[in-house]
Amino acid sequence: MNGRDETAAALEALCASVGLPDARVRASAERALDAKTKPRRSLGRIESLAADIAAIRGSTDLGDFRPVVVVAAGDHGVAIEGVSAYPQVVTQQMVANIAGGGAAISVLAREFGARLVVVDAGTLAPVVHPGAVDARVRAGTGNIAVEPAMRHGEAIALVLHGAALARELAAEGCNLIALGEMGIANTTVASALASAYLHLDPDVVTGTGTGIDSDARRRKVEVIRRALAIANPADAEPVATLAMLGGCEIAYLAGVAVGAAAARIPVLLDGFISTAAALVATRLAPSVGDSLIASHCSQEPGHVVVLEALGLRALVDLELRLGEGSGAALCIPLVRAALALLADMATFSAVGVTDTGA
Amino acid sequence: MNGRDETAAALEALCASVGLPDARVRASAERALDAKTKPRRSLGRIESLAADIAAIRGSTDLGDFRPVVVVAAGDHGVAIEGVSAYPQVVTQQMVANIAGGGAAISVLAREFGARLVVVDAGTLAPVVHPGAVDARVRAGTGNIAVEPAMRHGEAIALVLHGAALARELAAEGCNLIALGEMGIANTTVASALASAYLHLDPDVVTGTGTGIDSDARRRKVEVIRRALAIANPADAEPVATLAMLGGCEIAYLAGVAVGAAAARIPVLLDGFISTAAALVATRLAPSVGDSLIASHCSQEPGHVVVLEALGLRALVDLELRLGEGSGAALCIPLVRAALALLADMATFSAVGVTDTGA
Repeated sequence: MNGRDETAAALEALCASVGLPDARVRASAERALDAKTKPRRSLGRIESLAADIAAIRGSTDLGDFRPVVVVAAGDHGVAIEGVSAYPQVVTQQMVANIAGGGAAISVLAREFGARLVVVDAGTLAPVVHPGAVDARVRAGTGNIAVEPAMRHGEAIALVLHGAALARELAAEGCNLIALGEMGIANTTVASALASAYLHLDPDVVTGTGTGIDSDARRRKVEVIRRALAIANPADAEPVATLAMLGGCEIAYLAGVAVGAAAARIPVLLDGFISTAAALVATRLAPSVGDSLIASHCSQEPGHVVVLEALGLRALVDLELRLGEGSGAALCIPLVRAALALLADMATFSAVGVTDTGA
Repeated sequence: MNGRDETAAALEALCASVGLPDARVRASAERALDAKTKPRRSLGRIESLAADIAAIRGSTDLGDFRPVVVVAAGDHGVAIEGVSAYPQVVTQQMVANIAGGGAAISVLAREFGARLVVVDAGTLAPVVHPGAVDARVRAGTGNIAVEPAMRHGEAIALVLHGAALARELAAEGCNLIALGEMGIANTTVASALASAYLHLDPDVVTGTGTGIDSDARRRKVEVIRRALAIANPADAEPVATLAMLGGCEIAYLAGVAVGAAAARIPVLLDGFISTAAALVATRLAPSVGDSLIASHCSQEPGHVVVLEALGLRALVDLELRLGEGSGAALCIPLVRAALALLADMATFSAVGVTDTGA
């Protein structure tokens, strides 16, 4: 095989390796929770969360909780179209801030005992920071309003790099991966991908991002229409659409999601961009959908649409619109709680509390 | 003054000592958050939470986060009317389980670094456990379907005991008090109190508690109607209504809320019962309302009604219906996050991130 065939084969093998959650383990977790000293199912979505994670992990014995937040960064050629409230240089500034401990996600990961992995998935200038993961295949993407975001092989390489990180984290004992991102103009790309994969008009899935006005939003919708006219997603296979629309960090996070699912690690989504990456992942390997957990519902209109398409319901709505993985991080304690309740609560019989079956 | 006059005067002094949140501190917290490296207000309700807490505390310099969960327990004579899915003995069994570390609230408090204080506010048999606070003024309440829950002086004593605990916790450095409760049949009492103070038909604020069927719910509504006919709340002052309807743990938690507000400590509500206690507190001292934070929205229909009456909006809805303080505890990490973001995030100017004002 030549190089191109090899990476395509590797992607195919990766996608084929994604299994399904274990329904018997889920039932076993539910029985265990029903024996705990509380009315049955009275912890509502926290109990479902525990059962879901047990099913994804394939075990009710979940061990120490080791969450990791993966923040992938990339630059987007489409930023030149004036679709963001921030100049493109902010990607680089914020990656340094995230790695340096000053960003919202840095603070949240620290508070909640999550490891933070910062990934350069293709910013304009390389990220120079100890501990940052280098997954660059190019310096930013092409402007999708006039050209492809990246080459087909670059998209595959980014997905494989993401999956490789998930595999490494699994080997190190990580048992939850939260997705985060940084990339000026990446809500434009997420909207384009959502439109393309879900066959929706861009207007339905395009919002104001980090704070543009309604005129800028209209321009953003027009930019996405131009991008879709070039990408022609109706006739394209999933990787081709990803390569046409980008972005680098989204392709990478899609790979993280596929790799995590293959390693039976639950994937905690953040907002619109990470959820668009998860949508890409399910187009590559549909079973990935069963390893996804929706954390919060963001203020971006496209987020609700994509969550619904994925059959997911967010745990919380805190009116966030930041990204970086901040909403996912805020839900890490809920996962911690779910696992601790499953592991540590007493049963009716062990402590002699009367069980009426309520 | 005789004893009765003295305690009434102490209650009056306590209620008069509750101040208002500091609007200038709130504005200062908002300015501080606006200078942080994120689009303005992009952390949504987490930013409001930080500003609210700063205003309640009267400072943006909030120091180490020291949350305490106060779980008050009491028994209810009305349990004899068959209004609960559990026999009355479960109050005592569950208090032992909570204190022993096996209940949901025990696990959650431990996971989230909150101190757990268990209070015997009037269970049938005294709680014997090291560390349990004795605030007993009687062994359970009267059956409100046929008699007053307690005497007027007992209601005042319980409120004062609760306020004394809050004062002690404040002296020990506690800066968040989450309210929790245990008491078989106490949703009946909470519904009666909500009906009484808000002048609502019991049917509107009565649910299925920890799991009764619709026939039992109808009986529960009728029991509350009988209780209201005896209590005659339209013509009664707040303490008289509290004494007529109970319960001991609700009176105690109302006192904790008043005492916390007087000590500028935010009060994190749990579900319907703790919110009913907060309603009592606002009837004693209206400014207490400004120190309340709603954590979750429970499955009890009365909870939404009382939250609205208090002008509060829950942070999350996780479909919980357990009580014990479990929903409040699940929101403790959100408070922790809000305070950490206010304290620790970098500003645009400090780390050289371009601020477009978005």
